[in-house]
Amino acid sequence: MIQSVAFIGLGAMGYRMAAHLPKQFDTVYVWNRNFTKAEQHAAEFGTQAVALEQAVQADIIFSCLPISQDVENLIASVTLKSGSIWVDCTSGVPESAKKLAAALKQQNVAFLDAPVSGQTIGAETGTLTVMIGGDAVAFERALPAIQTFGKLIKHVGEPGAGFAVKAVNNMLMAVNLCAVAEGFTTLKAHGVDLHEALDCINASSGKSNVTETVLPQRVLNRSFPLTFALPLLAKDTGIAVDLVRQAKLSAPVLSLTQNLIQAASDQAEENSDFSSAMIMYEKWSKITIE
Amino acid sequence: MIQSVAFIGLGAMGYRMAAHLPKQFDTVYVWNRNFTKAEQHAAEFGTQAVALEQAVQADIIFSCLPISQDVENLIASVTLKSGSIWVDCTSGVPESAKKLAAALKQQNVAFLDAPVSGQTIGAETGTLTVMIGGDAVAFERALPAIQTFGKLIKHVGEPGAGFAVKAVNNMLMAVNLCAVAEGFTTLKAHGVDLHEALDCINASSGKSNVTETVLPQRVLNRSFPLTFALPLLAKDTGIAVDLVRQAKLSAPVLSLTQNLIQAASDQAEENSDFSSAMIMYEKWSKITIE
Amino acid sequence: MIQSVAFIGLGAMGYRMAAHLPKQFDTVYVWNRNFTKAEQHAAEFGTQAVALEQAVQADIIFSCLPISQDVENLIASVTLKSGSIWVDCTSGVPESAKKLAAALKQQNVAFLDAPVSGQTIGAETGTLTVMIGGDAVAFERALPAIQTFGKLIKHVGEPGAGFAVKAVNNMLMAVNLCAVAEGFTTLKAHGVDLHEALDCINASSGKSNVTETVLPQRVLNRSFPLTFALPLLAKDTGIAVDLVRQAKLSAPVLSLTQNLIQAASDQAEENSDFSSAMIMYEKWSKITIE
Amino acid sequence: MIQSVAFIGLGAMGYRMAAHLPKQFDTVYVWNRNFTKAEQHAAEFGTQAVALEQAVQADIIFSCLPISQDVENLIASVTLKSGSIWVDCTSGVPESAKKLAAALKQQNVAFLDAPVSGQTIGAETGTLTVMIGGDAVAFERALPAIQTFGKLIKHVGEPGAGFAVKAVNNMLMAVNLCAVAEGFTTLKAHGVDLHEALDCINASSGKSNVTETVLPQRVLNRSFPLTFALPLLAKDTGIAVDLVRQAKLSAPVLSLTQNLIQAASDQAEENSDFSSAMIMYEKWSKITIE
Repeated sequence: MIQSVAFIGLGAMGYRMAAHLPKQFDTVYVWNRNFTKAEQHAAEFGTQAVALEQAVQADIIFSCLPISQDVENLIASVTLKSGSIWVDCTSGVPESAKKLAAALKQQNVAFLDAPVSGQTIGAETGTLTVMIGGDAVAFERALPAIQTFGKLIKHVGEPGAGFAVKAVNNMLMAVNLCAVAEGFTTLKAHGVDLHEALDCINASSGKSNVTETVLPQRVLNRSFPLTFALPLLAKDTGIAVDLVRQAKLSAPVLSLTQNLIQAASDQAEENSDFSSAMIMYEKWSKITIE
Repeated sequence: MIQSVAFIGLGAMGYRMAAHLPKQFDTVYVWNRNFTKAEQHAAEFGTQAVALEQAVQADIIFSCLPISQDVENLIASVTLKSGSIWVDCTSGVPESAKKLAAALKQQNVAFLDAPVSGQTIGAETGTLTVMIGGDAVAFERALPAIQTFGKLIKHVGEPGAGFAVKAVNNMLMAVNLCAVAEGFTTLKAHGVDLHEALDCINASSGKSNVTETVLPQRVLNRSFPLTFALPLLAKDTGIAVDLVRQAKLSAPVLSLTQNLIQAASDQAEENSDFSSAMIMYEKWSKITIE
Repeated sequence: MIQSVAFIGLGAMGYRMAAHLPKQFDTVYVWNRNFTKAEQHAAEFGTQAVALEQAVQADIIFSCLPISQDVENLIASVTLKSGSIWVDCTSGVPESAKKLAAALKQQNVAFLDAPVSGQTIGAETGTLTVMIGGDAVAFERALPAIQTFGKLIKHVGEPGAGFAVKAVNNMLMAVNLCAVAEGFTTLKAHGVDLHEALDCINASSGKSNVTETVLPQRVLNRSFPLTFALPLLAKDTGIAVDLVRQAKLSAPVLSLTQNLIQAASDQAEENSDFSSAMIMYEKWSKITIE
Repeated sequence: MIQSVAFIGLGAMGYRMAAHLPKQFDTVYVWNRNFTKAEQHAAEFGTQAVALEQAVQADIIFSCLPISQDVENLIASVTLKSGSIWVDCTSGVPESAKKLAAALKQQNVAFLDAPVSGQTIGAETGTLTVMIGGDAVAFERALPAIQTFGKLIKHVGEPGAGFAVKAVNNMLMAVNLCAVAEGFTTLKAHGVDLHEALDCINASSGKSNVTETVLPQRVLNRSFPLTFALPLLAKDTGIAVDLVRQAKLSAPVLSLTQNLIQAASDQAEENSDFSSAMIMYEKWSKITIE
């Protein structure tokens, strides 16, 4: 029986995800490097802000950090309890998941890579998609805790499989970011009304999440709200092309996209939302997508 | 008042589109190069199979042919009635629409480029998306006839704008065809369950029409039903990159995709569905997307 | 026997090329839109600055203009002499050469597409490479005149073949421009001494004209001297990808390069040399290739 | 003073490189996994075929193995002599060179990454290009030994710099392989004589090592002699794109090339020469480059 859970990393996503745990569990530890956030979370949601050493003694420990290296460093700095499960919701590196899963197994701790999709709104409403790699038994044991914030929860394969699916998902989104920017600057150069064109495309075979939500909600209205930073998308596309390389496959469109997103990220202003990748194309073409 | 309409080109799409016209108009001419099809249509739907010379005397003439050159040849071979409107539903070339619109204007005939989206099922149910370029007054006059087979009908700009939107739409679909093939062969190489991964992606930011319909309905089940031929998709992506070239823009992802779709088409078997573009990647990687 | 020759278009290349003709021919007409240049040429080299109508009455007429459209317009504006040969040294469009060759044949005039390579220094020393498409007999007849400024002179095929070879040549150079910029910014990011690296590469399999001359003479020394404008290179790469499209082939590296050169050209300052395409990469990477 | 040298790895390159060492040094150990080759070398060139444990006691140890992992494994299996220098001529991974240089420094052994260029003919004639990363003092000490087989020998930077230059060199060659294949299939599709076109390009700005040697000596004559295996070129292009990734740069042409070479390698027959990358394009286009 799960007696206690912990959540480590209370960023924009983690803060909201951890808020659902007390509905299901009596003992919910939270920890954050900037500890004020943990205390704020405890005050707001009835969780317990505790020292890292105590947090990692929970039966299930969630983590949600910027990159896999952060998770590796954190795990290397603590001693875990035999029989516990570490559920890492970072958008991380599959190779890292394999290493951690193998290493923690030595301590009789299961490691699940469990990245999420659905943005802050999905975290808030507890309707995230969670794609999970790792041991099937640990997956079943951790499921009730994951269900507090997840809606569609899938066990997609061995350690690293969750991270792989997340990386490919974000890559596919990035491909559409680039392709839509290219297509819509072209249409505008030819005098086409972009709003009418978008309506047509969203009723047709060219539609994607980018045409359905990113373009109308972030670009055409020129808002580019920062909810997912462009450098993090660049990182994710990098993870995807590394998977291609490791498998010795050929993925020209993904690779090109990774390079373009990297270029866009390198040139973007600080704190740019991922949607501002399109601004690189606007600078190239001197055409505004609006 | 519109007294008569005609439909020229009774292929898989045109045959079904023309079937809706008698609901709204008393006089509906149909013509097809293989005239047996026109006679069959008349018998089945109460249209009139007539000589081409008579068909083009209608108030509104629809055409739906493989390529713009076919439409140009046809129009060059006939004399049109002053005041009539030619509505071309071919997935055609914007430059050709501009030429035809200008040339027909000399004869007091309006030309609308009005390509459709929605496949044969949309044609059958009269729920096609129609994206239209050309004169706004002619658009309004032709609208009742277009509404017989169209649901979302948009005037997107000057002559050629309709063809441009269609080309970009199909290009965006082609981009996703390639990217999804690359992403899913990569996931499979890493041991990920593709069906579970697809469920996650379709609930996430990477989703597109290709992940939602093409992949599950045509590829994962290995059916590749021929409803839209791969060489025609190659042609459409070519139209899109020509638009990029004419505007002197840079669209690396679209250009790369055009080259890949062309390569896939050049290598595909006769009568391959557009979805079989993914087979090229399967051959490259020796991985089957299933 | 060739009694008279003419040279039309006295730009940086043409001015120097035409200077060699009087060594071989008694009657050498020159014409230029800005006629002062023609008069200057006559004074300097003993040619005859004449009206366009007279110039085109020569037995062999050379032209060297910015683009094929200029040549088409010029030819459309004049009447040519039966039995004469038009040798077009423009870096032009193969399709245009085919059209002109067919049209002039009606007037019993041969058209040779004869673009040159070797820059202004080659024009000055009469050591240009000339790649020629068109009628073999006309080629033989025009050869003595072409030899005044050309060293390697090749009949490469039917009308348009000369332009095609030139376009592909410039495209290959463009590919190396991009690839070398990418490779050398990468080496510099890793702390490698670029001059030593260049020496190694120029003694190895990665060498090209770009590493042997463009990089050391134009980029590493930060001179970027304007001898061949970047927009003209963009035009040539466009001609090359149009050839790919017409043949329904797949050329992903060429297409990507065309897009990158176009982007670099669109963003470059006025009057940028082709070598400044590398500056786009420098801006992307914030690394100077020096 | 250098008393003894060793050469480990007597493949096509190493066998010939090691043959020059006895001219300069009295004690030359050789070792090879398949030891018969070492004995054959000793018989042929007066070297000493010894056990690995003895070979690595030389003052300077050369290695030339397929990949960096082989070198790492080998070094991990032996004890080295303080003060010695390990000169690795493998076309290896820069990251590995950094690791090995740091690790061996603990044992007071210098590690130089010293990949070579010039193929078997350069190895035979002792005229290889050697690009070297690592400690400058060790470089100077090892120079006399390197000079036995090298002609142009350059110290290009810190540990890993030699491998980096080699990877970029081979990448640039790979880019030209792809671009030339694309350009020449296009020319042939347009009826151009490839041999005449090649002469023109080799006298023009589009020339490269690929047009000057690979195309005429390996492709146009349909010989594709195996001197450098295609999978090894794929490996080298992979090293180059990893350098791009590590520096967070954008190198679209290099990345695309890596994917294409990987695809060509994945599809090629066993024991294909690098030049047979062009065969992939021939299959795509159904055009033979001859």
